[in-house]
Amino acid sequence: MAGSTEPTRVMVAVNESSIKGYPHPSISCRAAFDWMLSKLVRSNAGGFHLLFLHVQVPDEDGFDDMDSIYASPEDFQRMKQRDKTRGLHLLEYFVNQCHQMEIKCEAWIKQGDPKEVICSEVKRVQPDLLVVGSRGLGPFQRVFVGTVSEFCVKHADCPVITIKRKAGEAPQDPVDD
Amino acid sequence: MAGSTEPTRVMVAVNESSIKGYPHPSISCRAAFDWMLSKLVRSNAGGFHLLFLHVQVPDEDGFDDMDSIYASPEDFQRMKQRDKTRGLHLLEYFVNQCHQMEIKCEAWIKQGDPKEVICSEVKRVQPDLLVVGSRGLGPFQRVFVGTVSEFCVKHADCPVITIKRKAGEAPQDPVDD
Repeated sequence: MAGSTEPTRVMVAVNESSIKGYPHPSISCRAAFDWMLSKLVRSNAGGFHLLFLHVQVPDEDGFDDMDSIYASPEDFQRMKQRDKTRGLHLLEYFVNQCHQMEIKCEAWIKQGDPKEVICSEVKRVQPDLLVVGSRGLGPFQRVFVGTVSEFCVKHADCPVITIKRKAGEAPQDPVDD
Repeated sequence: MAGSTEPTRVMVAVNESSIKGYPHPSISCRAAFDWMLSKLVRSNAGGFHLLFLHVQVPDEDGFDDMDSIYASPEDFQRMKQRDKTRGLHLLEYFVNQCHQMEIKCEAWIKQGDPKEVICSEVKRVQPDLLVVGSRGLGPFQRVFVGTVSEFCVKHADCPVITIKRKAGEAPQDPVDD
């Protein structure tokens, strides 16, 4: 209230859906984004500044290319170009939504291990809050897939809010998102 | 944004400071409250409805009475009365603050194990968000004291935000709060 003239800077970690098709936001990161708008930002668009971080996992994003043959440096270049395009397409979704609602935002892409990169970007950018979606997996599933959200809650240098995907929104294989 | 006519219901778990003196809010729950006001509620007082839950641990609150002699049922009655008074005094602090800022709120006291009671109250009251302060103890200290915030992040049925006490606000013994 008093003295809060600077907008609250919220970093939102976003990723692509693991379900095939053209890159869409994952179910859990879209749920986290929608929750944040309706429950925190509400009608106070000017009070918040959103920072969208998309971390691309080089291996995972190249998975479709398993059977491809790389014969020249240009092939790698093309692959990198394609990754970049997919990442930009993902960020565009969020930036467009913010633009429509007149919420100030920034968005950028990094490469690496999402949990490590998110925490190091928090250190660098120093947001007031980090919002991360979560698939809400059970303990058994978590053993095998690890969860970015748990790591961030423990290690990020700012308050973290984890939004669980609703049970009804989970795809057939709950590890998908 | 769209369709958010109902205020966002935020449950805030509050407890007494463990440092001697008349009951004050703990350093970490006051930090969590202040953070929430300045970073989430901001100027949008009408958009939020705060729910203050204070869980009293019967043993811990009776610690000062270790050397007392209880000779009649009235002695216990008096002790209970005193606990209630301390709890009300604590809640009064938060309710007064909200009143000054014209934020709607409710406050109540429960008895039991804080982490269990907070999670069962979340189930019953169904807030949009739970805010918990944390002493931000290191892994070594955590082994001995356990942390309410970690338990709630894992088990509460709603999004949870944990606000760590700032290093500069920690008392001499970091387990104190």
